[in-house]
Amino acid sequence: MHISRTTIAEHNDQRMFAHERRFNHLASETPQALSVLPLLEAFQVAIPSWALGAGGTRFGRFGLGGEPRNLEEKIADVGLLHALNRSSGAISLHIPWDIPEDAERIKALATRYGLVFDAMNSNTFQDQPGQPLSYKYGSLQHVDKAVRKQAIDHNIEVIRYGEVLGSKSLTVWLADGSCFPGQLNFREAFQRTLESLHEIYAALPADWKLFLEYKAFEPNFYSTTVADWGQSLLAVSKLGPQAYTLVDLGHHLQGANIEQIVALLLMEGKLGGFHFNDSKYGDDDLTVGSIKPYQLFLIFCELVEGMDARGMLHSRDLGWMIDASHNVKDPLEDLLQSVEAIKIAYAQALLVDRAALREARAASDVVRAQEVLQAAYRTDVRPLVAEARLRAGGALEPLALYRAGEVRRRLTEERGSGGRATGL
Amino acid sequence: MHISRTTIAEHNDQRMFAHERRFNHLASETPQALSVLPLLEAFQVAIPSWALGAGGTRFGRFGLGGEPRNLEEKIADVGLLHALNRSSGAISLHIPWDIPEDAERIKALATRYGLVFDAMNSNTFQDQPGQPLSYKYGSLQHVDKAVRKQAIDHNIEVIRYGEVLGSKSLTVWLADGSCFPGQLNFREAFQRTLESLHEIYAALPADWKLFLEYKAFEPNFYSTTVADWGQSLLAVSKLGPQAYTLVDLGHHLQGANIEQIVALLLMEGKLGGFHFNDSKYGDDDLTVGSIKPYQLFLIFCELVEGMDARGMLHSRDLGWMIDASHNVKDPLEDLLQSVEAIKIAYAQALLVDRAALREARAASDVVRAQEVLQAAYRTDVRPLVAEARLRAGGALEPLALYRAGEVRRRLTEERGSGGRATGL
Amino acid sequence: MHISRTTIAEHNDQRMFAHERRFNHLASETPQALSVLPLLEAFQVAIPSWALGAGGTRFGRFGLGGEPRNLEEKIADVGLLHALNRSSGAISLHIPWDIPEDAERIKALATRYGLVFDAMNSNTFQDQPGQPLSYKYGSLQHVDKAVRKQAIDHNIEVIRYGEVLGSKSLTVWLADGSCFPGQLNFREAFQRTLESLHEIYAALPADWKLFLEYKAFEPNFYSTTVADWGQSLLAVSKLGPQAYTLVDLGHHLQGANIEQIVALLLMEGKLGGFHFNDSKYGDDDLTVGSIKPYQLFLIFCELVEGMDARGMLHSRDLGWMIDASHNVKDPLEDLLQSVEAIKIAYAQALLVDRAALREARAASDVVRAQEVLQAAYRTDVRPLVAEARLRAGGALEPLALYRAGEVRRRLTEERGSGGRATGL
Amino acid sequence: MHISRTTIAEHNDQRMFAHERRFNHLASETPQALSVLPLLEAFQVAIPSWALGAGGTRFGRFGLGGEPRNLEEKIADVGLLHALNRSSGAISLHIPWDIPEDAERIKALATRYGLVFDAMNSNTFQDQPGQPLSYKYGSLQHVDKAVRKQAIDHNIEVIRYGEVLGSKSLTVWLADGSCFPGQLNFREAFQRTLESLHEIYAALPADWKLFLEYKAFEPNFYSTTVADWGQSLLAVSKLGPQAYTLVDLGHHLQGANIEQIVALLLMEGKLGGFHFNDSKYGDDDLTVGSIKPYQLFLIFCELVEGMDARGMLHSRDLGWMIDASHNVKDPLEDLLQSVEAIKIAYAQALLVDRAALREARAASDVVRAQEVLQAAYRTDVRPLVAEARLRAGGALEPLALYRAGEVRRRLTEERGSGGRATGL
Repeated sequence: MHISRTTIAEHNDQRMFAHERRFNHLASETPQALSVLPLLEAFQVAIPSWALGAGGTRFGRFGLGGEPRNLEEKIADVGLLHALNRSSGAISLHIPWDIPEDAERIKALATRYGLVFDAMNSNTFQDQPGQPLSYKYGSLQHVDKAVRKQAIDHNIEVIRYGEVLGSKSLTVWLADGSCFPGQLNFREAFQRTLESLHEIYAALPADWKLFLEYKAFEPNFYSTTVADWGQSLLAVSKLGPQAYTLVDLGHHLQGANIEQIVALLLMEGKLGGFHFNDSKYGDDDLTVGSIKPYQLFLIFCELVEGMDARGMLHSRDLGWMIDASHNVKDPLEDLLQSVEAIKIAYAQALLVDRAALREARAASDVVRAQEVLQAAYRTDVRPLVAEARLRAGGALEPLALYRAGEVRRRLTEERGSGGRATGL
Repeated sequence: MHISRTTIAEHNDQRMFAHERRFNHLASETPQALSVLPLLEAFQVAIPSWALGAGGTRFGRFGLGGEPRNLEEKIADVGLLHALNRSSGAISLHIPWDIPEDAERIKALATRYGLVFDAMNSNTFQDQPGQPLSYKYGSLQHVDKAVRKQAIDHNIEVIRYGEVLGSKSLTVWLADGSCFPGQLNFREAFQRTLESLHEIYAALPADWKLFLEYKAFEPNFYSTTVADWGQSLLAVSKLGPQAYTLVDLGHHLQGANIEQIVALLLMEGKLGGFHFNDSKYGDDDLTVGSIKPYQLFLIFCELVEGMDARGMLHSRDLGWMIDASHNVKDPLEDLLQSVEAIKIAYAQALLVDRAALREARAASDVVRAQEVLQAAYRTDVRPLVAEARLRAGGALEPLALYRAGEVRRRLTEERGSGGRATGL
Repeated sequence: MHISRTTIAEHNDQRMFAHERRFNHLASETPQALSVLPLLEAFQVAIPSWALGAGGTRFGRFGLGGEPRNLEEKIADVGLLHALNRSSGAISLHIPWDIPEDAERIKALATRYGLVFDAMNSNTFQDQPGQPLSYKYGSLQHVDKAVRKQAIDHNIEVIRYGEVLGSKSLTVWLADGSCFPGQLNFREAFQRTLESLHEIYAALPADWKLFLEYKAFEPNFYSTTVADWGQSLLAVSKLGPQAYTLVDLGHHLQGANIEQIVALLLMEGKLGGFHFNDSKYGDDDLTVGSIKPYQLFLIFCELVEGMDARGMLHSRDLGWMIDASHNVKDPLEDLLQSVEAIKIAYAQALLVDRAALREARAASDVVRAQEVLQAAYRTDVRPLVAEARLRAGGALEPLALYRAGEVRRRLTEERGSGGRATGL
Repeated sequence: MHISRTTIAEHNDQRMFAHERRFNHLASETPQALSVLPLLEAFQVAIPSWALGAGGTRFGRFGLGGEPRNLEEKIADVGLLHALNRSSGAISLHIPWDIPEDAERIKALATRYGLVFDAMNSNTFQDQPGQPLSYKYGSLQHVDKAVRKQAIDHNIEVIRYGEVLGSKSLTVWLADGSCFPGQLNFREAFQRTLESLHEIYAALPADWKLFLEYKAFEPNFYSTTVADWGQSLLAVSKLGPQAYTLVDLGHHLQGANIEQIVALLLMEGKLGGFHFNDSKYGDDDLTVGSIKPYQLFLIFCELVEGMDARGMLHSRDLGWMIDASHNVKDPLEDLLQSVEAIKIAYAQALLVDRAALREARAASDVVRAQEVLQAAYRTDVRPLVAEARLRAGGALEPLALYRAGEVRRRLTEERGSGGRATGL
C-alpha cells in the first residue's frame, strides 16, 4: 500500500485553482498568515504505534480490516499518513509490542518513509505472558520490591531499545493507584514510585528526557499515584533536569483549566510533551478537536506564548504526540482528522494579535482580550494549513485522497481482516 | 466447594456470646430494631453471573484462580454466598454466556442452593463469534433495520430462556449511542430504539416486566441513546404498564441527586429495579458502600419511604441486583462486602424515625431533619444485620468464615487458575 | 444616549469596501450563504432587563457607571443594542423590579425603539420588602399553603402585567429545592409544586405559553425541585398544551449533552424557549460563546433540524433570550458579544450540508458526519452575519461603534455612577 | 445571653444514666476508645466570625433574628458554642469587619469565654466604601502595581491587628483569577501574585505562619490564580518555611481525591491548615458531614496518620477551622452540628486499627484494608465524643440544650431581628 507523489500531484492539480483562490483571499485579509507558513510546515506530530488499529472499551472491541500486523506495517501506516499530510513524520513505539528485532532494518524502513522515532513508551499496566510478577497492585509503587525491580528493569530495557532507534525520550505513564479507600498509604506509594523513577532516571542517556504523565483516574478508580500536574511536577522536580511533565488532554478532572496548567508548567521549565486527543467525560481518547476545539485553540495560545517567552523552538522543544483510541472510525482517517485539527488550532494561535492582546490585558480590557482571541479563532485557516501541506509536498485534502485511493480496502486485501494491531 | 451448615454453626457458636452482647445492647437502645428484623431477613439481592470472575478495564485484566467455568459453577458460587449470608438467593443470567443447555437440571441445581432466577440480561454491546451483523454502530438504534431485527430477536430469545428458568423480567441495557457529534440524529435514534423496544415488549409474557436501564456515558463517549432517567421514563411510559426504569448507581453524571430520581420514579410508578455498586468517577463498578455509603443510605431512605407510600413489598416489588466489576478483589469477597453494605444501609433506613422526620419537614426544621436522618445513619447496625443473618441460617461473619475456609484456594485447586469466567 | 442612523451609516460606509470584499468571497465559496440571509435577519434575541447592570456573586459586586435606574432606561439600553445589531428587538421583564406604572407610555417607548415584550419573569427566589411570608424554604413547593398562595398570586400578577404590555409568555424559574438531605420529601415537594403550577396555568390567557425552567443546583445545594429536563418535561406534560420546558445552557450538570436534550424536547413538542449564556463550572452566566462555542453550534444544529422537522418558524416558534450576568465586562458590550456569538452559531448551523449529513448517517459514516459538521463550523461566517445586520439597518461592527461613540462614558455622565440596576 | 455551668450540669444529670450505659458499652467493645479521649478533649475547631450570621447566595439572603451586630457579640456567640461543646475555643477574624477598636478589652472578653484568636483573614475579594482602588480585576495579581500595593498593605495591616490579639497566622484567600479566556496572562498573573505574597511574607512575625488557600472556581469562573493544591504548593515552596497550603474542602473540582492531597501536603511538610464544610457541587459551604461524611472520615485518617508520621501534635500543629455559610439553618445550630461531625470523624479515624491496616497494605489485601477502615467508620462513636465533651465540662447534647434554652429567641429579643452580621 503506497500513495505515490504522482497521485498526490494529480490530486492537488485538480484542486489547485480553488485552493489558490481561497488561500489568496486569506493571505490578503490576514497578511501575517504568510509569515506563519514555515512554522506550520515544520510542525510534526508523532503517531503512536498503538493507535493504528481499532481500540476498544472494557465492553468489547469492534475490529476493522487491514490492521497492521507488525512493526513494519505500523511504520508503513504512519508513512502513509505522513505522505498525505507531511505532518506525521514520527512514530512513537510501545514496548513490548514493538520490539525491533532488527533495529537497523527498522531504522532504514522508517527513514524511507521520512519518519523518526519519537518517545518510547513502557508498559506496566498489564501483565504479559510469561512475566514472573504481576502488576495487579501497581508497578513502580508496588509494596513488593521485586515487582518494582521488574518494572524498573522493563523501563530501562525500553530506553535501550530507544537508543538503538534514535529516540531521545521515554514516556512513563503509570496505571498505578488504588481502587478502594484504605488500599494504599498515599505517601508511601508516592515515595516508592519516586524511588523507582530515580532508578530509571539514572539509566537515562545524557541527551534523553524522561516524561512523566499524570492521570486523574482509570484504570484505578479511587486514587492514582501520579494523579495531577502538581504530583507530576513534584516528582520531576525531585528527579532532575532531564525529567519533565507530560500533559495528556484527557487525563484531567471535569472543569480543569488545562491551558493554565500548560502555562504554569512552561513557566517552571518543566513541560516536556503533549498527548493530543479529545473527550467529553474522561480519558475518552476521541479525535482531536472533535468535542472542544476552542479549548484546543486556547491551549495552543498558551503553548505558543509560553514557548516563545522561553525562546523554545515550537517544532522541537516539546514532544508532540497524538494519543487516541479509535472505536468507531477507521484509525487512519481519525488520525488525519486529528492532525488537521491540531494544525488548525496551531495556525489560529499563531494568528493571534499578541500585541493587541498584551495591550488589552494591560488595561484589564476583558472584552477586547476576548475579541482578539476570537478574531483569530473565527478565522477560517483551512487554506493556510492546506498551503503549508502543499509546500511540504503533501495533499491538499488528505482525507479525500485517502478515500479516493480506497486505502482501507486495499490494506484489508493485503493484510486480511482478522488481524488485530497489538499494543493495547 | 461447599460450606456446610455444621461449619456455619460452629463459626456462629464461637461468636455467639459477643454477638448477643452487642445485639442486646442495640435492641435495648433502639427498640424498633426488633421490628425490622423480619424485613432484613426477607431482603434478597441478586448476584449477576458476570460478577463472579475478575473484571477488567480497557487497559487489561488481572485474573485470579478458581473462576467459574460454566453456568453450573456460577450457580455454585452464588449458592456459596447465599449459604454464608442468606441474602443472595437469586442469580441474574447473561445471554449468550449463560445459555442453559438443560434447563431442568439447571433449575434443580439452583433450587438445591436455594436460588431463584432473577432478571435475564441480553447483550448487544459486543459482537459474538458467528454473529451475522455487527453492533459497532448500535443495536436497537441502528440505522439498518436488519441489525435492529437481529438485536430484537436476541432479546426475545433471552426472554424465552428466562421463561424456562422461571425468571420474570428482562433487563435491557443498551450501549447504543455515539462517539462523535454528527454521528447520530438524536431524535431518530431515540425513535428507532423505541420502535425496537415495542417489538421486544410485545414478546413479553403477561407476568413479566421489562427494565430499561439508562447510562450517561461509556462505551459511547459523546451521546447515549438512553442517557438519563428522563429518557428511560419517556420510553417506558410509551411502552406500557409492564415497562419500568432500572437505576444503576454508577450510570449518572457527577453530582446527580440519585435519591431524588428514585423518589420521582417511585412517584410515577415506574421504578422497576436497582443495580447496586459504587463509584467516584463514572461507572466504576466498585464495591457497594466503598465510596459513598451515606448516599447509599439516603437512597434507601427514599426507597423505603416511596415503596411504603405505594404499599409495595420491599422484598418483592422491585428488582434488587448488584452490578459490579472486580478488578483488584476476590469477586466473592467483594460480593460479601457489597451485600453487607446494602443491608446496613437498608437497616439504617428502616430505623429512621419517620414520624419525627415528617414533623421536622412540616415545620421546615432543616436542622432537626438532618439530626433525624443522621441519628439512624450513625447507629451501628452491624449486630442487627448479623442477627437477621443468624436467624435466617447464615454466618455471623460471612467474610471471616469465607477466609477461614480458604474458599478461594480450594476453588482454585478445583477449577484451576487459567479459567476465565465468561459474561463480559 | 442615542446612536443615530446617520452615525451608523457613516460607520458602515467606512467599512463597506472591506466588508463587501469578504462577503463576496464567502458568497462565492459558499453559495447557500445567500439563502440564509433572510433567516439571519429575522432572528431576534430578547434581552432580560436584569442583564443591563453589573451582576455579582455572593462575594460581592463591582458596579460600573451609567447603569439604568428604571424601566425606561432599561428599554433605552436595549433599544441602543437593537439599533446597533438589529437582533435585540425584544426585552424580557422581571417583576417586581420592572412593574410598568404607566403601561401605555412604556409600550409606546418600546415601540419607538422597535422593541416588543418577550417572556415575563416572576421572582420567588428572594423576599421583597414588605412581603408577608418568606420564600426561605421555597415558594411553589412550600409546605405552608399560604406561602404557596402568595407565590401563585405573584405569578398571576406577573401575567397580568404582561398582558397589558403585549407579552405572550411567562417564564417560571424556581429556586425551590433543599440544601440538606432530609429537608424535603422529594415526592411531596414535586407534587406541591405541580399543584401550584396548575393554578398559575389556569390563569394563563389562551394565547400564552408557560415556560418551566429546570436547574441542577444553586441557590439550593443539595436538591432542586425542578432539577433537570426530565423533571420539567414531567411537569409540563401534566400541566397541558400551553406549558413548555425552557432550557438555560448553564443549568446542567457537567457533561450533560444539551444538544441531545434539545433534540428530544423538540421531538416531544415541548421545547418552549432558550436562555443563552456560557459556563465552565455551573450557572456561571458568562458571555455566550466565550467558553464552548462548538457546543453552541451543535445545539443550533439540533434546533434548526428539529424545528424544521416540525415545520416551526425559527424566528417565532421558540422563545430566544440571553440570560447572563456581567461581573467584569460592560453589560452592553457583553450583550453585543453574546448576540454576535449566537448569530454566528446560528449561521454556521444553517450552512450545514444536511443532505450530506443525512447520507453519512445512513451509512454510519462517522468520519464523514464529523467532516460535514466541521466544514460548516470552520467557515468564517462573520461577513455573513455582518451582511444580515447591514441589510437590517444595523452596524457592520456594533462593538466598534459602541466604543467609538463612548457610550458608557456618556451613559455615566447622564445617569451617574452610583446607580445600580435592579432586578437581581 | 449565657448558658451557665449549672444549666449544663442539670442537662447532663438528666442524661447521665443513659450516656454512661452507652459509653460503657462502647468502652467495653472498643477498649482503645478510652485512650483517645484525651485527644478528643484537646481538639479545638476555630469558628470564623463571618459564619455567625445568615449567609446568602447571589440570588439573595434570608436573614434571621439575633445576628451579632459587632465583634463583641460575635465573640459572645462563639463563647456560647464553646460553653456547650468545649471544642470551639477559638475565633477567626475577618478584616475589615472585625477591626478591634480596643484590643485589650477584646482580648479580655475572649479570655472570659475561654477563647483564643485563630488565623486572621484578609479580604480583597470585594471593595469597601472609601477604598481608593478597586479589586474588580484582582488584587495581588493585578496588572496595576498600585492595586497590588493596596492589597499588600491591607494584608500587612491584618497581620498587625492579629499581633495585638495574639493570633499566630494569616490566611490568604484570593478571589483573583479571570472570567474569560484571554483576560489574563496566566504566567504573569501567577508571578505578580507571588511577588505580592513575598512582600506580605516579609512582614510576617517570626512565629507566624502564612496560609495560602487555593480554590478551583468562584467568584471567577474561567481561571483562578491559585487554583489547586499544586499551585498553592508551588507558591508556598517559593515563599519560605513560614508559608503553608491551606485546604478548604469545598475548593476542589468534582472527583478530586482530597485525602490524597492532604497526605501529600503533609509529606512535603507544607500542610498548614484546614477549612471544614461540605458540598455536593462547588464551594457550597454546607454543614460539615452533611453530604459526604465518609470522605470526611477518610481525610481524618490521612491527617492522623500523616501528622503522627511527622510527630505533629493534632491539636496544635495544624490550623483547624470551619468555613461555612448558613442559608437555611440557624448558624449556631449549624456550627454545633459541624463541630460534632468533625469530632465524630476524628474519633473514628483515631479508632482505626493501624497495625492491621499496615499489614493489609503490606499484603496488598484490599478487602481487608477496607474492612479495617469501615470497622472504625461503622462504629457509633457518639457516646465517645459525648464523654470527651462531658469531661471537658460541656453538654452531653449541645444542640438539645441550645434549643431547650431557646437561645435564638433570646438572642433575637436582645439584638433585634433587623441586624445583619458583617463579614460577608
